Amino acid sequence: MTKKLVAIALGGNMILQKGQPKTYEQQMENLRVATEVIVKIIKMGYGVILTHGNGPQVGNILVQQQSGVTEGIPAQPLNICGAMSQGQIGFMIQTAMEELLHEEGMKDRRVVAIVTRVLVDSSDPAFKEPTKPIGPFYTEEEAIVLHKKSRDTYINDAGRGFRKVVPSPIPLEILEGKTIRRCVEEGDIIIAVGGGGIPVARKNGQFVDVEAVIDKDRATEVLATQIDADILMIITDVSNAYVNFGKPDQKSIGKITIEEMKKIFDGQFAKGSMKPKVGSAIRFIENGGTLSIITSPENAIDALKDKAGTRLVQ
Amino acid sequence: MTKKLVAIALGGNMILQKGQPKTYEQQMENLRVATEVIVKIIKMGYGVILTHGNGPQVGNILVQQQSGVTEGIPAQPLNICGAMSQGQIGFMIQTAMEELLHEEGMKDRRVVAIVTRVLVDSSDPAFKEPTKPIGPFYTEEEAIVLHKKSRDTYINDAGRGFRKVVPSPIPLEILEGKTIRRCVEEGDIIIAVGGGGIPVARKNGQFVDVEAVIDKDRATEVLATQIDADILMIITDVSNAYVNFGKPDQKSIGKITIEEMKKIFDGQFAKGSMKPKVGSAIRFIENGGTLSIITSPENAIDALKDKAGTRLVQ
Repeated sequence: MTKKLVAIALGGNMILQKGQPKTYEQQMENLRVATEVIVKIIKMGYGVILTHGNGPQVGNILVQQQSGVTEGIPAQPLNICGAMSQGQIGFMIQTAMEELLHEEGMKDRRVVAIVTRVLVDSSDPAFKEPTKPIGPFYTEEEAIVLHKKSRDTYINDAGRGFRKVVPSPIPLEILEGKTIRRCVEEGDIIIAVGGGGIPVARKNGQFVDVEAVIDKDRATEVLATQIDADILMIITDVSNAYVNFGKPDQKSIGKITIEEMKKIFDGQFAKGSMKPKVGSAIRFIENGGTLSIITSPENAIDALKDKAGTRLVQ
Repeated sequence: MTKKLVAIALGGNMILQKGQPKTYEQQMENLRVATEVIVKIIKMGYGVILTHGNGPQVGNILVQQQSGVTEGIPAQPLNICGAMSQGQIGFMIQTAMEELLHEEGMKDRRVVAIVTRVLVDSSDPAFKEPTKPIGPFYTEEEAIVLHKKSRDTYINDAGRGFRKVVPSPIPLEILEGKTIRRCVEEGDIIIAVGGGGIPVARKNGQFVDVEAVIDKDRATEVLATQIDADILMIITDVSNAYVNFGKPDQKSIGKITIEEMKKIFDGQFAKGSMKPKVGSAIRFIENGGTLSIITSPENAIDALKDKAGTRLVQ
């Protein structure tokens, strides 16, 4: 295969933004906008694997699981809710994208969504310290009752209320990686690793159920490295990563070597936001990738032309 | 590829039976039993595509969608619920099967679940006459109120209560067929067409939203024909199709030509149960398939050895 392979991670807020109606119609409307740039990248000749967040969707599914209990439907565990959200979002993205591909004269290109599992180590230290908030908000009193009942951990999430937290272990391997690579080589556009993938752990050939959430950008990096992609592109709501973000002397980061980036990595970047993105971008180059991009949808094409966005190179 | 390709349809009641707890654990327990025979078939050297029903699961998801409305989460449409169930069941099946494959010394075989869409004609006459009951049961009074609000059709489902009915149009094409064929050729075990697939219709290159349920066995036949499978196997809870089923002179049907089967087709077989299975089995041979099998899990291996089950041939 001569064409370049790019693994693109789409932020969950591109599919559903805070405050928007949580309807199917709203999500489809957002996706028709969000995937326009992906279709342009395909038109440029890149082989594309698209990964995506699932925060708002899995949050809604978790609420619905709880609501259904009074109707006699037991709540399914988090890994199942994640799998559900992969089906849901995968189908919405392929619908939106194939329409755009048709408009662009590429009506024979197929967008295929693959249920994706991510292997983690069941002895990952993250399992001892859950950090990732999921699902509905509770009052402190409710959280205390829930904690006593389930032994789940609840934290005060940025003053907005109490939420359950789950571990966020390190992704080791994308179990469907080989299939994904083969499909994209043959011309399919692949949707995979939804919500960071469904975490699984192994013990003597059996799977151990894991309640965790994998960082989507980190899982995308693992996939991109595993299938030997050329470019890792993390699409978010800002055009660049910044030095001194939000301060008077903030400065956008353009093209930068990973050596330079590593020098400023510790002091800069918001935890749980830009930091994991930059970390994944660095790791991809360290693992042999050619180019890592962090940028907004508007700047993605120019970033591929080396004219915009944060671009990490060796 | 020299090995034979078999498309196997697994009944939804193999995943969750009536009266059982609707938990994840129960479904996994059932699947570990139900997929044992599939793993044996893989061990015999067949290339396998597994399709499955989703009745109980999508029924539960529909109830949860309604329950979540009071918590501010709008109900997602039926196609999205179907997509969710494909993620859910696909993940459960691949987990159960890869464990069995590992036990059988085939730990490098990968089971991959693909979100599958099925093309239907938006002018299919079925859209004028919805027949397929879905979701929760209502009283007659509730059904009348719901009908007035939504214009949806409700019927008395076998005296058990009132349920919404949706159209069951004819499946024309599996949109992911080419990818599925390629993956199974390369040695993947593929899970696809969950719940009969997510129905989509096209109009001028755009997708039209479709509220419908596709018959799983018929959709499996379309896939089997499309990817040039050798064998269509429909796994259900009886060992054979029967002539005069349930009567004193009932007689099991073994090996039979489609000409003979077509002669008895109209007078025999329960609508919505054995009839669509036999119809799909006939159609597969008419469309060029070598062998259609209808049988139980216990008899599936012997059926492949031409020793048990209902076997349709040219």
